[in-house]
Amino acid sequence: MEQRTEISSLGEFGLIDHLTKNIELQNASSLVGVGDDAAVIDHFGKQTVVTCDILIEGVHFDLTYTPLKHLGYKSVVVNLSDIYAMNAVPTQIVIAIGISNRISLEAIDEFYEGIYAACEKYGVDVVGGDTSSSQKGFIISITAIGEVAPDKYVKRSTARKGDLLCVSGDLGAAYIGLLFLEREKKIFLESPGVQPDLEGESYVIGRLLKPEARKDIIEFFAQNDMMPTSMIDISDGLSSDLLHICKASGVGCVLYEEKIPIAEATRLAAFKFEIDPTACALSGGEDYELLFTIPQSEHDKLVLNQQISVVGYMTEPDQGVTIITKGGSKHAITAQGWNHMKQ
Amino acid sequence: MEQRTEISSLGEFGLIDHLTKNIELQNASSLVGVGDDAAVIDHFGKQTVVTCDILIEGVHFDLTYTPLKHLGYKSVVVNLSDIYAMNAVPTQIVIAIGISNRISLEAIDEFYEGIYAACEKYGVDVVGGDTSSSQKGFIISITAIGEVAPDKYVKRSTARKGDLLCVSGDLGAAYIGLLFLEREKKIFLESPGVQPDLEGESYVIGRLLKPEARKDIIEFFAQNDMMPTSMIDISDGLSSDLLHICKASGVGCVLYEEKIPIAEATRLAAFKFEIDPTACALSGGEDYELLFTIPQSEHDKLVLNQQISVVGYMTEPDQGVTIITKGGSKHAITAQGWNHMKQ
Repeated sequence: MEQRTEISSLGEFGLIDHLTKNIELQNASSLVGVGDDAAVIDHFGKQTVVTCDILIEGVHFDLTYTPLKHLGYKSVVVNLSDIYAMNAVPTQIVIAIGISNRISLEAIDEFYEGIYAACEKYGVDVVGGDTSSSQKGFIISITAIGEVAPDKYVKRSTARKGDLLCVSGDLGAAYIGLLFLEREKKIFLESPGVQPDLEGESYVIGRLLKPEARKDIIEFFAQNDMMPTSMIDISDGLSSDLLHICKASGVGCVLYEEKIPIAEATRLAAFKFEIDPTACALSGGEDYELLFTIPQSEHDKLVLNQQISVVGYMTEPDQGVTIITKGGSKHAITAQGWNHMKQ
Repeated sequence: MEQRTEISSLGEFGLIDHLTKNIELQNASSLVGVGDDAAVIDHFGKQTVVTCDILIEGVHFDLTYTPLKHLGYKSVVVNLSDIYAMNAVPTQIVIAIGISNRISLEAIDEFYEGIYAACEKYGVDVVGGDTSSSQKGFIISITAIGEVAPDKYVKRSTARKGDLLCVSGDLGAAYIGLLFLEREKKIFLESPGVQPDLEGESYVIGRLLKPEARKDIIEFFAQNDMMPTSMIDISDGLSSDLLHICKASGVGCVLYEEKIPIAEATRLAAFKFEIDPTACALSGGEDYELLFTIPQSEHDKLVLNQQISVVGYMTEPDQGVTIITKGGSKHAITAQGWNHMKQ
């Protein structure tokens, strides 16, 4: 029988003690961790990088098909991805959560298992947080802190004409994964007896539920003494994030459709839904891959890494932000990312 | 006629642009602010201090009587208070919000007016954030970052036997302010025609709706070359926060009821509700005053500051955490702070 412990039986301070009692700090820079008014971090000689993301039940995740452990893992990863996108190394996080009485202590433990698994994998310390009740829904707000040597951080506003446009990994899978899970949820709600049919879709579903941040790409840059001229993580879709780089940098761009990396599993899954895999890559979002620009002179170093694809190049701003399709025609790229607000 | 602009007419990126377009960074340490994956902060030679708080509508605030500008101001202040409680100086914040479609752009602007007013007053930069929709209620998560010289930060775990126990300002007012506003809300809901009767209660209501963080006390310490042995901000009530210090430091304490600073306006207001002003100070919470311990040898410096009251002294742990009442009897102090979860 599954145990259910009400959070209210512990109280706020009891819950905090319970969740933080096994924390072991991994970074020498984490001087004071959980258990005081604030954490103290020592980044002498390095610059501190900070980012935050808020995840709200019903907006960013659906607990009907998201295991809490995966949710905890993903909540950390999406923040670390932003730190890597600055060419920095994440070192600490602080976590604020709001939990309704629908959620048991066992459920919160599962969520934290995911949090700590991600922290261990990426070498990050949990150094603080805030725990509150919520009237409705589960709310997660994480702030990640990282470090970078002076003048080694990479902004999105410094791409230059002539630079190569590159992307890590492959795109579009998380969006297809979401379509599968939404379809199965609908079937389940209509006919609760039917078992989910997710046969063969583990790749795309895994990309949605348990994304990874591209620590390896940042390490590759460091090992090969490379520095992108600009970088962003792809959370809203290739179109939207490419437009961010072009707008912020004041450049245009040519993107080749045929160069966009899309996994075979993603293509096959997209065909089942009768949608264009390229559209998923451009507009899907939640891929957490890195999109960056690099001087042409660095091309020889790039080919050492099979996880990096060159997908285009940057132009004068008046050339616009464009895609050359497989058929050879040229189109302007427009933002069609995850725009929660506009839908 | 009041204007109402739907947030959806701007979209997420439009809203972010709108909210951040007038930011001017005040701190040299704020190298990269809003508009990238993460902010970059330079605290060379200083240690970085980080804290976060989440505020959820219906749990932490009630929009029926909380002006949004005050809410923005208070959201910043409660975080800065935690930074000051480490004997550090706040320098940056990142803000994540979740907003339902009930909230107009004009309302968000008011909220941000309060955010920026607090940032200006305390010399803090907004360097990042995340903006999301929420299915229900307004959600605010702020992370504050500060700096402190090495070995100048003050934890809550380092109070020593014989130290004087001190508190800044006065206590209990915010709780009485809350009682007034809750009473008027109830009357309003029962008889919507009745005007609120808050005559003469501006002090206690102001303490609830627009608290200030004790920057002045931290500056006083620096100017007088003083350092508390331990410190915490009083957010949960004097009892609860004193117990935190005693438990973390492994000491006991004697607190004198007659020494607890309570404003005359708070006493009068408490009598109207027929409650004991001391109980408000002990259990009320949301005062955002500083509770700290200091060696007896520093007593002469303390008296220079009329904003500081000596309220007791620290003892061996086996003496317990106790209060000596005005009548001279001795009682153990128990936690009765704002324990949202346990109520």
